[in-house]
Amino acid sequence: MEFRVESDSIGEKRVPKGVYYGVQTLRGADNFRITGLKLNKEFIKSVVQIKKAAAITNLEIGILEENIGNAIIKACDEIIEGKFKEDFIIDPIQGGAGTSINMNANEVIANRAIELLGKEKGNYQVVHPNDHVNMGQSTNDVIPTAGKITALRLISKNIEKLKELSLAFGKKAAEFKSVIKMGRTQLQDAVPITLGQEFCAYNAVVKRDIARIERVKTELEVVNIGGTAVGTGINADSRYIERIVPRLSFVSGINLKMAEDLIDSTQNLDGFSAVSSAIKTCAVNLSKIANDLRLMSSGPRAGLGEINLPAKQNGSSIMPGKVNPVIPEVINQIAFNIIGNDVTVSMAVEAGQLELNAFEPVIFYNIFESIETLTNGIDTFIKNCVLGITANKEICNEFVNNSVGIVTALCPYIGYTKSARIAKTAIKTGESIKRVLLREGIFKEKEINSIINPLKMTKPGIVGK
Amino acid sequence: MEFRVESDSIGEKRVPKGVYYGVQTLRGADNFRITGLKLNKEFIKSVVQIKKAAAITNLEIGILEENIGNAIIKACDEIIEGKFKEDFIIDPIQGGAGTSINMNANEVIANRAIELLGKEKGNYQVVHPNDHVNMGQSTNDVIPTAGKITALRLISKNIEKLKELSLAFGKKAAEFKSVIKMGRTQLQDAVPITLGQEFCAYNAVVKRDIARIERVKTELEVVNIGGTAVGTGINADSRYIERIVPRLSFVSGINLKMAEDLIDSTQNLDGFSAVSSAIKTCAVNLSKIANDLRLMSSGPRAGLGEINLPAKQNGSSIMPGKVNPVIPEVINQIAFNIIGNDVTVSMAVEAGQLELNAFEPVIFYNIFESIETLTNGIDTFIKNCVLGITANKEICNEFVNNSVGIVTALCPYIGYTKSARIAKTAIKTGESIKRVLLREGIFKEKEINSIINPLKMTKPGIVGK
Amino acid sequence: MEFRVESDSIGEKRVPKGVYYGVQTLRGADNFRITGLKLNKEFIKSVVQIKKAAAITNLEIGILEENIGNAIIKACDEIIEGKFKEDFIIDPIQGGAGTSINMNANEVIANRAIELLGKEKGNYQVVHPNDHVNMGQSTNDVIPTAGKITALRLISKNIEKLKELSLAFGKKAAEFKSVIKMGRTQLQDAVPITLGQEFCAYNAVVKRDIARIERVKTELEVVNIGGTAVGTGINADSRYIERIVPRLSFVSGINLKMAEDLIDSTQNLDGFSAVSSAIKTCAVNLSKIANDLRLMSSGPRAGLGEINLPAKQNGSSIMPGKVNPVIPEVINQIAFNIIGNDVTVSMAVEAGQLELNAFEPVIFYNIFESIETLTNGIDTFIKNCVLGITANKEICNEFVNNSVGIVTALCPYIGYTKSARIAKTAIKTGESIKRVLLREGIFKEKEINSIINPLKMTKPGIVGK
Amino acid sequence: MEFRVESDSIGEKRVPKGVYYGVQTLRGADNFRITGLKLNKEFIKSVVQIKKAAAITNLEIGILEENIGNAIIKACDEIIEGKFKEDFIIDPIQGGAGTSINMNANEVIANRAIELLGKEKGNYQVVHPNDHVNMGQSTNDVIPTAGKITALRLISKNIEKLKELSLAFGKKAAEFKSVIKMGRTQLQDAVPITLGQEFCAYNAVVKRDIARIERVKTELEVVNIGGTAVGTGINADSRYIERIVPRLSFVSGINLKMAEDLIDSTQNLDGFSAVSSAIKTCAVNLSKIANDLRLMSSGPRAGLGEINLPAKQNGSSIMPGKVNPVIPEVINQIAFNIIGNDVTVSMAVEAGQLELNAFEPVIFYNIFESIETLTNGIDTFIKNCVLGITANKEICNEFVNNSVGIVTALCPYIGYTKSARIAKTAIKTGESIKRVLLREGIFKEKEINSIINPLKMTKPGIVGK
Repeated sequence: MEFRVESDSIGEKRVPKGVYYGVQTLRGADNFRITGLKLNKEFIKSVVQIKKAAAITNLEIGILEENIGNAIIKACDEIIEGKFKEDFIIDPIQGGAGTSINMNANEVIANRAIELLGKEKGNYQVVHPNDHVNMGQSTNDVIPTAGKITALRLISKNIEKLKELSLAFGKKAAEFKSVIKMGRTQLQDAVPITLGQEFCAYNAVVKRDIARIERVKTELEVVNIGGTAVGTGINADSRYIERIVPRLSFVSGINLKMAEDLIDSTQNLDGFSAVSSAIKTCAVNLSKIANDLRLMSSGPRAGLGEINLPAKQNGSSIMPGKVNPVIPEVINQIAFNIIGNDVTVSMAVEAGQLELNAFEPVIFYNIFESIETLTNGIDTFIKNCVLGITANKEICNEFVNNSVGIVTALCPYIGYTKSARIAKTAIKTGESIKRVLLREGIFKEKEINSIINPLKMTKPGIVGK
Repeated sequence: MEFRVESDSIGEKRVPKGVYYGVQTLRGADNFRITGLKLNKEFIKSVVQIKKAAAITNLEIGILEENIGNAIIKACDEIIEGKFKEDFIIDPIQGGAGTSINMNANEVIANRAIELLGKEKGNYQVVHPNDHVNMGQSTNDVIPTAGKITALRLISKNIEKLKELSLAFGKKAAEFKSVIKMGRTQLQDAVPITLGQEFCAYNAVVKRDIARIERVKTELEVVNIGGTAVGTGINADSRYIERIVPRLSFVSGINLKMAEDLIDSTQNLDGFSAVSSAIKTCAVNLSKIANDLRLMSSGPRAGLGEINLPAKQNGSSIMPGKVNPVIPEVINQIAFNIIGNDVTVSMAVEAGQLELNAFEPVIFYNIFESIETLTNGIDTFIKNCVLGITANKEICNEFVNNSVGIVTALCPYIGYTKSARIAKTAIKTGESIKRVLLREGIFKEKEINSIINPLKMTKPGIVGK
Repeated sequence: MEFRVESDSIGEKRVPKGVYYGVQTLRGADNFRITGLKLNKEFIKSVVQIKKAAAITNLEIGILEENIGNAIIKACDEIIEGKFKEDFIIDPIQGGAGTSINMNANEVIANRAIELLGKEKGNYQVVHPNDHVNMGQSTNDVIPTAGKITALRLISKNIEKLKELSLAFGKKAAEFKSVIKMGRTQLQDAVPITLGQEFCAYNAVVKRDIARIERVKTELEVVNIGGTAVGTGINADSRYIERIVPRLSFVSGINLKMAEDLIDSTQNLDGFSAVSSAIKTCAVNLSKIANDLRLMSSGPRAGLGEINLPAKQNGSSIMPGKVNPVIPEVINQIAFNIIGNDVTVSMAVEAGQLELNAFEPVIFYNIFESIETLTNGIDTFIKNCVLGITANKEICNEFVNNSVGIVTALCPYIGYTKSARIAKTAIKTGESIKRVLLREGIFKEKEINSIINPLKMTKPGIVGK
Repeated sequence: MEFRVESDSIGEKRVPKGVYYGVQTLRGADNFRITGLKLNKEFIKSVVQIKKAAAITNLEIGILEENIGNAIIKACDEIIEGKFKEDFIIDPIQGGAGTSINMNANEVIANRAIELLGKEKGNYQVVHPNDHVNMGQSTNDVIPTAGKITALRLISKNIEKLKELSLAFGKKAAEFKSVIKMGRTQLQDAVPITLGQEFCAYNAVVKRDIARIERVKTELEVVNIGGTAVGTGINADSRYIERIVPRLSFVSGINLKMAEDLIDSTQNLDGFSAVSSAIKTCAVNLSKIANDLRLMSSGPRAGLGEINLPAKQNGSSIMPGKVNPVIPEVINQIAFNIIGNDVTVSMAVEAGQLELNAFEPVIFYNIFESIETLTNGIDTFIKNCVLGITANKEICNEFVNNSVGIVTALCPYIGYTKSARIAKTAIKTGESIKRVLLREGIFKEKEINSIINPLKMTKPGIVGK
């Protein structure tokens, strides 16, 4: 391989001739071979959009030369369109608050801009990664801001999917409106409910998640770009500071606000903790729903069998005909992973010291994964599970008719103690509640039919009154 | 000891004669000897306020006899005032979604009401724990509602303390306005900042926590009382369902709303997950601040020594004169505990099944502890630490004057690369930046003094322009 | 109240006249009103046993006066027997690595010893908390050592209970040896198994937990007592250092070893992380078993109903006759709490800095709770659940006979693909597997009975060969 | 693209003509687009080694035809050597306990074997993925066993790196043997220690981690292969069951044991919880060390500056000359991530139900990441940080000479109270301890020099005696 020689404060280093990254990127890549993974693509895009917005602003206020500024903007546009992906070589888990990512972007942009200006890569006299591309910026304002823009984008997709899921549950709720089944509390027979009511509840909790995540989004819209090194705004032209946020809003297409206290906003990453937690709560809710679906579809013969999930793949390499609830199971696993990620985020946010939190890389690594896997999980959940669920109406009804829990409706008439005795008798003898009531002559058949009315029990009020 | 004999569906059991709880409470106490602790007092109060509100409502709509209803209300009032504490004997960690707590309240109230009506405790013909005290209710709506009311009360106190803390940080920010010191990122010298700016940032993050917790409070104001067993409202008179929430708002003094979907609200406890997470994020922020204070006050001789924390107690049993940052340390520990509690809450919320989440007791145990210990921690933090902090202005200034990080201000003049070389030289020779600049003849003294101006570096803009 | 005036480096302070604690304890109590709880009794005992062992050693080597040493030993013995409990007033969550606890013990012992020597409490000329009671010690060696001794004691009880649980599962495994039932994987019918085999598996995992916890115990037996302030052993007589561990082993009745590297042992609390994790893994296993029991006992009519848990209390305040799996539910909750506690322990162990980890109090608070609640949970689990479980043999058998999963036994004869087709047919038509085989003429009845033999399927090998 | 049509119980599906995977793999890939990542390569290797060992065994006992068995073995060997990587297309987070992974392996092996036998891919009459490749196996025994083998391999590399780290710390401990510095507890000056002692302690804790991880390794060596579907061994020839573990030990080069209770071993994944926890404890320890190194190297001017970490990359995009502790920072982040992963593992292990834990994929995803990132982190830690650390001996000494903490050595002579007063005086006046002692005439100069001897203070005993 051919090389060019670059140097920084640490010393000289050979960089492969054809690449757009430079010496600082290479050191970062050498120092951090941790996960073997690449940076999130949306994140690279966000960093580069900041570079573009900064160049536009610096051009506007006249502190960046036209040709350099334009070359930087052109280089940014190319990267935003998806070029030079392979030149972003920094591991997502890295030391240093994202300096390596920032320098990776600065170097790729500088070298591409140099090239656009007809010079050789590495000739930083032409376009300098720090002095030109990073002008008015610091890792300390670029990286948190890029993290927020990225999270906002990922969240938007997440909310879209959640809305689809809400519609899917709503559709199923309507479809299962008249399927009366046994409600269960603590896995024990309780009182009747409709399958539609259950899916209605799933819809309700998803809607609450959407509202919660939308609320937390606003926290991310407040950025510290312009604060530079520690949030004091040192080395940033005051006109730049005034303009950078509106320019960035324009470039990114996201409506951002500058933080009132840039020093706070530079050192405190609690907004990410809030986002991680909202995603976690959503994951927790979906995992609960997934558990319910697995329970209700258990069987086919030795389980509850109240609903059928669509068969998506053979369930077993040894047991023929077995079909497993693989889609809800993946929702569970995504949720477990997100709950763990949230712990990591909490620890990393807590570990900030003085003017900076150096642990952004691991925060982003976890938050981006949490949001994306949740979005992807919901997508398969809707398409490959929820929409295809069917009800076994007869089994549902049979459980109700056979149930002891319906004795609850007697309480307003004969009190808790007497009702309990009847329930106990039924369990012991194996009779139905109706049968015990008739045999013991407590009510007449007509009264019984009026009180022990499963459909009415699924609605508020004292049945039979 | 003398006993009375009570019975339930399980069978007969001897209950100590003098006590107000009954057989079901006793079974719960026997089954769950887990933590050896008592229930949170505010929680008992909340449960009993629900009982009172239900009795008022049932009286109003005429389904509870006057004398029984009035006796129940009177009994509730006595408990709310603090009586019969020792009759609440259920362990906070218990099986059964809070049935034992609910029955503990039902039995104590019933027995006290029986007594008020001049009869013997245990004579449930007079006032029945289930039929009268629990009328129109189920554990499944009483307990989540009581949990929310309790959390709301504890949060109110928490917000008050956070507001005091915000004031304290604001006061200190003003006091330390002109203390210029070295800003540090990644524990390495960065650029100058004022101690006042640092405390301003602490204030800013606390204010954000207050806003976040106030936002999440609204989630708790939505309750499922009236939903009874599974949220369908079975066995509750429709007039009761209409009235119970306003009555409870009145009795509790908290403005509550009925959930739109009572079935959802009965089975999903995500509101508690959201609250736990908001408290966690606040704890994370305070722990970061506590870490900063411990760092800045490190010494007295072999540390940074920029600030002094008030000496609150001897720091060592062996090292005389040692005073340790014990108050920030307790903030750290409270935070670690709360982060762990949040994991427990996530798991418990996830574990709900079908129509109910049976794991409310452990959720409440953890959330109540999180909120209360945070409130208590903030209280000692304000009084015994923050308000007494003093600055070592000279040490702060010396670090700045001696610093290499101030070289940053040169970048807009001579570029990053040259500035880096100067910094490196200074580090190697041990000289000050000013000295290197003079010696190398890069700037004149006057220029240097204009650019290397620590106070101006703490403000936005390019220093010297 | 009457007071005596005491003073320390911080200044003077009034101490209630009758109490045995002194000024330093009082400051600690004032500074830390966090949980409102008391220190674990076993922990106080462990601290005081260290004080006793130190006094014995110091007497032996002649650096502590006879009468003072003997008074200290006598005072220690009284506390160990359970006296002066109310004089230990420090909150379990406190700042300062346990200095407040250590000084609480030092002061109570000193004052009691002073009293035994016929002088007034507070007259530290007679017996000094630091110079005499704390002689040769530091908080930094006393508190970690006491934490380990305490954990060892709590673990011993835990292991005892686990062994009882193992016996209980073993008993049940034998009892249910011939109950053939459907094995389920992913909640879907798999292949036959016996209920006895399931309880055997529960026993196996508990036995593994016992072995794991016993293994981790050995980590705690290595203590740093003798290391004093930072592990260098400063201010401890070398003869004391040689003798203190054997003396403490004698006094505590636990076989302890001195750490090879006392500096490491003073600053690193990874042993507690290891213990917390072993307890957590045990909790995770028991929670899985609890979930199984709740599933298998679901019903009574609308669930699996394969087993019955003993009815321990009324399950509902509104639904008569309902009995819930409250004991397994409390196991789940204990487990959730322990998993959260483990996170707290990890964070606190991670947060140690340089020569000390100041966060022992919150580590102990969580670990002691984890071990004790697990022990208590197992106790009720055995007595109130496991031993009383009964099997519904008929239901179990019916599920097997009705099952499709038994088709698996056909694979070695007709291959996976053909077997899968038969399974699918059976599910579609609702027929039994035997019936489809007969109808399709794939096997003769005799062959079928030889291959589709549920009992044989519960054992290794190809059925029918 | 050209396709071949394959079918399974779910129906027909087009598979790209050239690929080795089949219809079941494709369904799995379609159902689970979650992380976008590939399976761990070591894991694929482990699964395929099991397939090979099974084929060898089935050949030996004569139930697999020679030519089919040999083709399978050849196909396995090719994959083990690294071929057909791109045909393993299943997402690491997937539903279904690993059935998709197992079938992916079965199908690739089958198709390659078919090809080797001169037939067309997809012609499963020749070699069948389930009947031949999966003969005697089930996902339920293959996948946990493969997970254990993989973890064992990753752990071996981890232990190697830990041993290197131990050597590195040992080397530094020797190098820094005579650098006397101030010990600090709670970030406050305590008593003198040597830098060598500190690195010795780091070595000690790493050695303990090695021992702990080696101990936990033995848990993983116990496998359930041979248990087939639920651990009963159904459909596996008894001769196969006897031989498979030794054959697999041979093929994998790892000494494995068959679990005594295969049913337990199939459903309980606590061994993975134990491994995850041991790795977590190691990470916690390394993070504490990383924190220490960051603290001690803080500066260069406004920090402690006791040691220098090797400069590995520019620390800032805006602050020239800044070099940050990026390597320790990446250790911290790896640790935070591992602690979160451990929570996920706990939850997933807890979530097993009845005869199987379906959540192995997310367990493996997290455990493999934990072990590998830790190994990689240690590698860079050794090479790019630990080995290059240098001491600033003068700064270290200065802190000691200037220190107040050395007053501790006076206690055995003049008691705690008087020593505390001297310390307080020194802090107030800014004098050195020696100076105060001289001025107050408490000791003669010679005595002082004998007692206030920092080097002696770093060793056990009463200094001056």
